[in-house]
Amino acid sequence: MSPKLTAKGAATRQRIIEGAAAEIRARGVAVTTLDDVRARTRTSKSQLFHYFPDGKEELLLAVARFEADQVLEVQQPQLGRLTSWAAWQRWRDTVVSHYDSRGQHCPLNVLISQLGRATPGAQAVVSELLRRWQDEIEAGIRHLQEAGEVSADLDAERTSAALLAGIQGGVVVMLSTGRIDHLEAALDVGIANLRASGNRH
Amino acid sequence: MSPKLTAKGAATRQRIIEGAAAEIRARGVAVTTLDDVRARTRTSKSQLFHYFPDGKEELLLAVARFEADQVLEVQQPQLGRLTSWAAWQRWRDTVVSHYDSRGQHCPLNVLISQLGRATPGAQAVVSELLRRWQDEIEAGIRHLQEAGEVSADLDAERTSAALLAGIQGGVVVMLSTGRIDHLEAALDVGIANLRASGNRH
Repeated sequence: MSPKLTAKGAATRQRIIEGAAAEIRARGVAVTTLDDVRARTRTSKSQLFHYFPDGKEELLLAVARFEADQVLEVQQPQLGRLTSWAAWQRWRDTVVSHYDSRGQHCPLNVLISQLGRATPGAQAVVSELLRRWQDEIEAGIRHLQEAGEVSADLDAERTSAALLAGIQGGVVVMLSTGRIDHLEAALDVGIANLRASGNRH
Repeated sequence: MSPKLTAKGAATRQRIIEGAAAEIRARGVAVTTLDDVRARTRTSKSQLFHYFPDGKEELLLAVARFEADQVLEVQQPQLGRLTSWAAWQRWRDTVVSHYDSRGQHCPLNVLISQLGRATPGAQAVVSELLRRWQDEIEAGIRHLQEAGEVSADLDAERTSAALLAGIQGGVVVMLSTGRIDHLEAALDVGIANLRASGNRH
């Protein structure tokens, strides 16, 4: 993001990103043009060029960043408060019901595919999302370790990486088959193993 | 597959599929034409039409099925023999080194994206692959339960679903970021939790 944006400029830029995200969610990324985005957000060509001088690619990357934020946003406040087993269960239910209701469509996945999964921009968006997501899970594990609910011997970083992998895999299986039971199994087994570690000595 | 194929016909069909798979791996699915496949496999237009009357889509689906078989094949014989902790470790190493050496390219993922992830044909290929993969893991867990190495209370089906989800997620993270540590964490934490279950009570 340009450091020169005024508060009003940042708001306009954000309005364009959210309008583009809505257009892409409604109509698909392949058919959405910059003119569609301009029409929906009531912006001129020069405004769009001002905020996204590199054109559609730059806008798509900004929309991908926005959709990545949404992935974490829909898990809040539960994900940020994994401080008891009841809280972990509420987070688990939030994740499952979110993906269950959304079905086989993932706006972020669509954008990453369009940008090219292996491009530096797409990789940066995905890497940052995974980093933030894992940090939240890891903080929850450490909280329960401090409370004596999870074994202090457990490697919180590695365990949160494994749980995050299970969630990603569960979502991918759902996108590919329509079935949500792998996502449920990954969360339930992961949480059960955390609990079991606290009962060992 | 047509039930009318002779042994020679089945061999020719298989030769076309494997040639198409090699062509697609080498040059990409988007640019590979039926003429490229004919040239590589030395088959005539009428032969190709005989074995794949519905054209490129039908051939791509057959190639996807072949690549799905390869996903399991590269894990053998380890995946089919999960009968000791040493065997689980060998399988874990096989999976990690396979994906590590292959890097950010997954022939099956490319084909499924091209066919359309939500199409019935693509879903059927992925669903069958996941079913067979999970069955092998589940058989390994049951074997260790019978040997008293894994808790008899453990739900083998759900635990194998969770481990499979972790592997899928680990691979997806690698395809998206180039990092293999989520795949390693999913396997290591999953296997460690199986072992820990046997040490409880």
